[in-house]
Amino acid sequence: MKASVFIATSLDGFIARSDGALDWLPEGGGEPHGYLEFMATVDALVIGRKTFETVLAFPEWPYGTKPVIVLSSHPANFEAPPGTVCTIIDATPAEVVDRLAVQGMGHLYIDGGVTIQRFLAAGLIQRLIITRVPVVLGTGIPLFGPVARDLRLTHVTTRAYPSGLVQSEYRVPA
Amino acid sequence: MKASVFIATSLDGFIARSDGALDWLPEGGGEPHGYLEFMATVDALVIGRKTFETVLAFPEWPYGTKPVIVLSSHPANFEAPPGTVCTIIDATPAEVVDRLAVQGMGHLYIDGGVTIQRFLAAGLIQRLIITRVPVVLGTGIPLFGPVARDLRLTHVTTRAYPSGLVQSEYRVPA
Repeated sequence: MKASVFIATSLDGFIARSDGALDWLPEGGGEPHGYLEFMATVDALVIGRKTFETVLAFPEWPYGTKPVIVLSSHPANFEAPPGTVCTIIDATPAEVVDRLAVQGMGHLYIDGGVTIQRFLAAGLIQRLIITRVPVVLGTGIPLFGPVARDLRLTHVTTRAYPSGLVQSEYRVPA
Repeated sequence: MKASVFIATSLDGFIARSDGALDWLPEGGGEPHGYLEFMATVDALVIGRKTFETVLAFPEWPYGTKPVIVLSSHPANFEAPPGTVCTIIDATPAEVVDRLAVQGMGHLYIDGGVTIQRFLAAGLIQRLIITRVPVVLGTGIPLFGPVARDLRLTHVTTRAYPSGLVQSEYRVPA
């Protein structure tokens, strides 16, 4: 089982404003920068409750028809967008990975600040693709949080796009 | 008068650990990544008191024989390294720029977290060259701080180095 992160951050490392707003992202997500190609390799999404609620409010559901696992310690009533399957699970990152592996899934897309940090802390993310948007927000929800010890990554590749997006891919050494 | 920043940050945007330590930087500053070429274009450094004290404790003085302006509201006793000229000034960023321009200086290198943030807030920095080291520290002294409004930058160029350093250059629109 492999798990990846594919996320945009501001230059100062925020993935959203403090209230979750993404209005600082380039319109329509910016020029094509590999999201569709990445999504084509993904078997399921794993996100937290907050990201789920944010994404439910988007004009367009960003995860296509991929199964979406929502981590939450509370059951919830929600209406999944037509054609999508969203499952709320109360489990640790390791338990989620085990359950999805049993279902034959090979590649998970981990999304949302808290969930990414939990999976990173558990050593369950192998790859991070970070797209830097050339804006400084000053405050917001950070991609990274405290870590138990320095987390050294291996740089794989970096691409700059004409709009100013800079995308770097890193591997997390085992 | 032009002012630039040339600085390394962790992937999570820190320029030093909370105690100022730089032990997470690649040894010897890493492979050559343009520092000497950049320094050759610089007329003077402007740094804060804390950075000055950190740099004084380095085994090697990183600013060559360039004049160094240290911003501090207190006079101080210090011994400048042989061959260097360090001047302590109690002034705002705009006053410093004006004084140095009168002395015929054309290009300032602004260094240190607080000083960079003050010059950015005053609209006195035209260029940022940020070199990302592939490590997540979790905590430390951030490059950026709060901003009065979104600061949109223009991406100029990005280079990746074999060691995993990724250097991006941005212009600050006037």
